[in-house]
Amino acid sequence: MLTAITTMDEVKVIEIKKSVFANNDKDAANLRRELKGKGVYLLNLMSSPGSGKTTTLIQTLNRIKDKLRVAVMEADIDSNVDAVKIKEATGVPSVQLHTGGMCHLDAEMTRQGLDNVPLEGLDLVILENVGNLVCPAEFDTGACRNAMILSVPEGHDKPLKYPLMFSVCDLVLVNKIDVLPYFDFDLEKCREYVRMRNPKAQVIPICAKTGEGTDAFAAWLLQEVSAWKKEE
Amino acid sequence: MLTAITTMDEVKVIEIKKSVFANNDKDAANLRRELKGKGVYLLNLMSSPGSGKTTTLIQTLNRIKDKLRVAVMEADIDSNVDAVKIKEATGVPSVQLHTGGMCHLDAEMTRQGLDNVPLEGLDLVILENVGNLVCPAEFDTGACRNAMILSVPEGHDKPLKYPLMFSVCDLVLVNKIDVLPYFDFDLEKCREYVRMRNPKAQVIPICAKTGEGTDAFAAWLLQEVSAWKKEE
Repeated sequence: MLTAITTMDEVKVIEIKKSVFANNDKDAANLRRELKGKGVYLLNLMSSPGSGKTTTLIQTLNRIKDKLRVAVMEADIDSNVDAVKIKEATGVPSVQLHTGGMCHLDAEMTRQGLDNVPLEGLDLVILENVGNLVCPAEFDTGACRNAMILSVPEGHDKPLKYPLMFSVCDLVLVNKIDVLPYFDFDLEKCREYVRMRNPKAQVIPICAKTGEGTDAFAAWLLQEVSAWKKEE
Repeated sequence: MLTAITTMDEVKVIEIKKSVFANNDKDAANLRRELKGKGVYLLNLMSSPGSGKTTTLIQTLNRIKDKLRVAVMEADIDSNVDAVKIKEATGVPSVQLHTGGMCHLDAEMTRQGLDNVPLEGLDLVILENVGNLVCPAEFDTGACRNAMILSVPEGHDKPLKYPLMFSVCDLVLVNKIDVLPYFDFDLEKCREYVRMRNPKAQVIPICAKTGEGTDAFAAWLLQEVSAWKKEE
């Protein structure tokens, strides 16, 4: 089954069109059901620009790619650099979604991307959403779970300022912990503020540059996908 | 005239309502004309979440407040911390605009804020827009100029990934240069990418934490306001 995936030798670039569906929540629920039927878990990964989504993915994909059959969709307004990076650094199939200036992805736009991923035989698709702490939080993409990355230089007060983003995410990766000594970032305060927004959310400190902590993210993903596969 | 301003002892919090105007460009042009009539220069300052807008403003306001009569509007989705910080650290009048989840400000929303600032006798109003590199770039606020902050931890490739933001800004402040040794940030590459998007844009490296470089931003503001006042 892996053969079907690895025929995606080049990085595909998909120009995403604006959605025509009025009811995104319904559309997202449908997509989630379809993915369940196919046995493909979809993770929606969000963050600010430059918080390290792609580097985090590279470290994590290299830790899970022998255990899960995985593909990545990289949303970006314009450039292709992320999908190419993922492909080169991990060998994991990766498509680039161009949003043409749009600030988020909804379920229909996610579906446009998924139409270009050979889903048969996959366990997991990770969607790297547009770098933005506001709009992506408002649109259900159809993913099984939302996760986000908050990087140390952004500050521990972000759950106070971007409440919706933190309430829709079940996992918060705190990235760039290698530079903690140079920033006024209080990890305990951050955990407290995250809990205020979503008491169930898990916080995992990581350093995507060195890979520190990404074992824990990899373990979270393996556990999530396995538990979800067992659900009725 | 300063008395009128300093009566704003408490930080006002304005709940911004969604705009009803269909033609934002026209509305923005009207607002710009009205501000010209009042002799008030409006600067729209944008950036990602956590890039240091408020700290940059504090350093800069303390450098210009004896030379220009200035007020600040702090847009945020939910919290009031920024307007309070500005007021406490600089004494400059500051109002907090709550966008109620909205990802940007347009001209009409900016006007709702300005209605709560006593403009008489002011030279300059600085609008700190919502932390977001996508949506705010799409909406003319009626400001005389757009400026933005890109912080070193976000990476020098951001003009490639958020093209519109960098093309609408005439000034790019590169903040957090104190941590340059800890990040793969190439200032020359950054300048080159900024020029690709807007050949006229000026790049000023700063460190808002220590104040380094904010003299240059203060000088830019003084020169801008003075030149604009002389324009017909």
